[in-house]
Amino acid sequence: MDVSVTNAQVTLVQLDNYGPWTVTPEPRREADLQTMQSRLYADLSQFFGTRDGYVFFTRFDNMIAVTNGIDRAAHARLQESLRNRYPVTVSLGIGAGANPADALVDATAHLQAAGSAQDAERREVLAGDPLDDDERTDDDVHIAHFDVNDATGKYTDELDAFSTFVRIEQGYASLMRALHDDHDGLAFFVGGDNVIALVPELARETYEAVIERVREEADMSLKVGVGAGRTATDAGMAAKHALEVCREDATTVEGDVAIRN
Amino acid sequence: MDVSVTNAQVTLVQLDNYGPWTVTPEPRREADLQTMQSRLYADLSQFFGTRDGYVFFTRFDNMIAVTNGIDRAAHARLQESLRNRYPVTVSLGIGAGANPADALVDATAHLQAAGSAQDAERREVLAGDPLDDDERTDDDVHIAHFDVNDATGKYTDELDAFSTFVRIEQGYASLMRALHDDHDGLAFFVGGDNVIALVPELARETYEAVIERVREEADMSLKVGVGAGRTATDAGMAAKHALEVCREDATTVEGDVAIRN
Amino acid sequence: MDVSVTNAQVTLVQLDNYGPWTVTPEPRREADLQTMQSRLYADLSQFFGTRDGYVFFTRFDNMIAVTNGIDRAAHARLQESLRNRYPVTVSLGIGAGANPADALVDATAHLQAAGSAQDAERREVLAGDPLDDDERTDDDVHIAHFDVNDATGKYTDELDAFSTFVRIEQGYASLMRALHDDHDGLAFFVGGDNVIALVPELARETYEAVIERVREEADMSLKVGVGAGRTATDAGMAAKHALEVCREDATTVEGDVAIRN
Amino acid sequence: MDVSVTNAQVTLVQLDNYGPWTVTPEPRREADLQTMQSRLYADLSQFFGTRDGYVFFTRFDNMIAVTNGIDRAAHARLQESLRNRYPVTVSLGIGAGANPADALVDATAHLQAAGSAQDAERREVLAGDPLDDDERTDDDVHIAHFDVNDATGKYTDELDAFSTFVRIEQGYASLMRALHDDHDGLAFFVGGDNVIALVPELARETYEAVIERVREEADMSLKVGVGAGRTATDAGMAAKHALEVCREDATTVEGDVAIRN
Repeated sequence: MDVSVTNAQVTLVQLDNYGPWTVTPEPRREADLQTMQSRLYADLSQFFGTRDGYVFFTRFDNMIAVTNGIDRAAHARLQESLRNRYPVTVSLGIGAGANPADALVDATAHLQAAGSAQDAERREVLAGDPLDDDERTDDDVHIAHFDVNDATGKYTDELDAFSTFVRIEQGYASLMRALHDDHDGLAFFVGGDNVIALVPELARETYEAVIERVREEADMSLKVGVGAGRTATDAGMAAKHALEVCREDATTVEGDVAIRN
Repeated sequence: MDVSVTNAQVTLVQLDNYGPWTVTPEPRREADLQTMQSRLYADLSQFFGTRDGYVFFTRFDNMIAVTNGIDRAAHARLQESLRNRYPVTVSLGIGAGANPADALVDATAHLQAAGSAQDAERREVLAGDPLDDDERTDDDVHIAHFDVNDATGKYTDELDAFSTFVRIEQGYASLMRALHDDHDGLAFFVGGDNVIALVPELARETYEAVIERVREEADMSLKVGVGAGRTATDAGMAAKHALEVCREDATTVEGDVAIRN
Repeated sequence: MDVSVTNAQVTLVQLDNYGPWTVTPEPRREADLQTMQSRLYADLSQFFGTRDGYVFFTRFDNMIAVTNGIDRAAHARLQESLRNRYPVTVSLGIGAGANPADALVDATAHLQAAGSAQDAERREVLAGDPLDDDERTDDDVHIAHFDVNDATGKYTDELDAFSTFVRIEQGYASLMRALHDDHDGLAFFVGGDNVIALVPELARETYEAVIERVREEADMSLKVGVGAGRTATDAGMAAKHALEVCREDATTVEGDVAIRN
Repeated sequence: MDVSVTNAQVTLVQLDNYGPWTVTPEPRREADLQTMQSRLYADLSQFFGTRDGYVFFTRFDNMIAVTNGIDRAAHARLQESLRNRYPVTVSLGIGAGANPADALVDATAHLQAAGSAQDAERREVLAGDPLDDDERTDDDVHIAHFDVNDATGKYTDELDAFSTFVRIEQGYASLMRALHDDHDGLAFFVGGDNVIALVPELARETYEAVIERVREEADMSLKVGVGAGRTATDAGMAAKHALEVCREDATTVEGDVAIRN
């Protein structure tokens, strides 16, 4: 059994009333929306990333961040900075929990309690509480970094670009469900053939089983490096180094995995 | 039968030797990679978008653009601009075809013929030819813009953010396969609950069947606006307006659909 | 006498009602304003620059662009793109004239006629007309690119950073006045020790006299490369190459200068 | 006499070997250089600004930041983030002193000791030491925020845009020298008609004399708000609020000025 004692802190970033804005007074050009969304995401990535957090683009109008160590004042400063530079504003829900899925449920609940994502009156909510410093430990965050074995040789250089993309997407869809449904993990496609997941502490056998499930469902062969740390950056960098070990040693699972009891 | 005479022009944008760069000399911080990738994409979106093209982020290291009306000199200027401002370079393959899938096969083939995506010597390839001006017509590009019926009410405001995301992703995965496998279309998630597809001319019944398939496979209810035009922007804006008609009239398919014979 | 037949086309970019916005409802953080301004300028630089124009940051809330070859539709598309992505909007005045100063007077007059820069009702003015294509010639634009002889050795590596900056600023102030007061040219500091000027066709002796004046007024030794072309980019690249000749041959004035009669 | 006990901490940001890079292997397009420079500056502004620092664009290849409260690790993280996202790198010299000018002399000396700004081997220097926490006080930073009385009415709406710019530049040149030569202050044009200066504690009479000197030298009428604080943001926001008082009350000097003895 995977018993998690992880203290994930997760922030849900939600653009306020964004859908209606994109078509008011009439539909705005898609190229401009794409530019604006992706730059706003890039700014979040620098803001959280240089404070040892991670943020994932997810749906772009709803983004999910791992924010252990980032306090309320920093969240408020982010809201202000975005308001001063973009035509849209963001609401932020901060959640915590014993596992990532629970933390995000908590974060989401704070925003839903404040109103609908398409409520024109609900703007710049900042709700929920960061972890107290004395609750924090050196392995609060677990990150699993997956990639596809020889994606370039098997897909990118062999198939047309969309067929490769379909394969990567199917692998990701399978992995995302496997981690979410059974292990309370949140997996995010981050480009190329990479998926980064915020996970509880999981056993080596669990990772092996997840990878096997993706192989069966999506005919895709993965490997994973796992890291633990006080912050997303600590855990994420450890995961990247573990994945390099997989590459060098042709192994499938490396890093901070739990000992099965 | 859907007989397409579309003249899609598609450009495959591939970051040169990107995977190895991200881990050389050791793994680079994910937040910085995410920032760099998404800003590069944003720049592509402005460059192509203000020339009436569209670009989709796809895998970020491989992006797909609809470039009808954009010539080789503009493609070369784009490569130069990126080289002068980013630590990475891009190769561009331009393809054309009677349908979007074929156009992308052509675009991909140009890059694959020049070398591997992870060949350190293959840099800034510019291969393939734009459509001749006298081949171009006023309905070369067909765009179908899908969204989810009441996504905010049914998902965003009801489920936790990741569960909503899983649902959206599953709907997208189903739609992407339905359009690609059976209709030579290329569908891209563009954020929120929106999917934009580059398609051949398709009949109303085809769209209805595709939407029904997504309902069955992913339990998700879609609507679609379709537009045709000389460029991606022309077609895409028409599709957006058609989708607004769906919203106002509570219909499922609107816009430039083929008359079934 | 310098007789100019230059057909400069200049666009004045003015942020609408910007000053009041920066302090409403209370003063906004300077760091956010700086970020927003400089990114908006960067976007203009890509937009105009990849259409063979130049833009100079000037005062950031009033920017001056050289836009030969860029039509009204492109100007309108730029306004739309900015409106969709920034919290501020821009008005654009397009002017033309026999020399750069006159062209800018014309461009400015179009905006002033439409209302005050701080009129809350005056938004997104687009006024004035681009040059007709049949008026355009292959040397409509003249660019002079100045830099300081051995700025790194004499200043950057020797003085403290502000003292160097004071020296560069004084040299620029002298140069800007010399070109504007006597020769209808518009000179812009572009970073480092570089000044780029939009000028009429001027004789070698004129450049020599201008450089001598800066030496006397500001004790600073300059060189200059001059280029002519159909567009700002054509002229500007020619000027850069001419400046390289100055560097290699230790000369003071190179490039497309008029033969003195 | 103005006796300053200010503990300014200043960081000199210097692009490594930038001049040669801009012309290697041949001159790069100015529009791309402008875009790259101004975005790099924008990133610095967010990085320092959301950590309560200020940065000024100065010469773009040499930028000056006020970094009280920002430690060495943050400086190193900034270098890494830029290296991962730009084609250029930066060196950072951190200096401190009893007044701003001295602090910058110190910061500059650290970089000059490490090599020339155009030494291809000198990359990513990080030299000098932040203030110890126990040296810091609540009024270490003094910021004076100047603007021009009725700049829009007198200049922007009346003169052509370059003539206005010449006037603003001349006022700035006069102000910059007055503060630097006589009062060890560092003044920076920040756009519009605004100049922000990092200053020692100065008396009301000093500000009045400086403003009078600018009126005489440049025929320009200024007002100023002054703030003091533990960080640049604290001081800078106080200065902005003081400047608003000037506006409301039609006064010339407001805020944290020293009592003359």
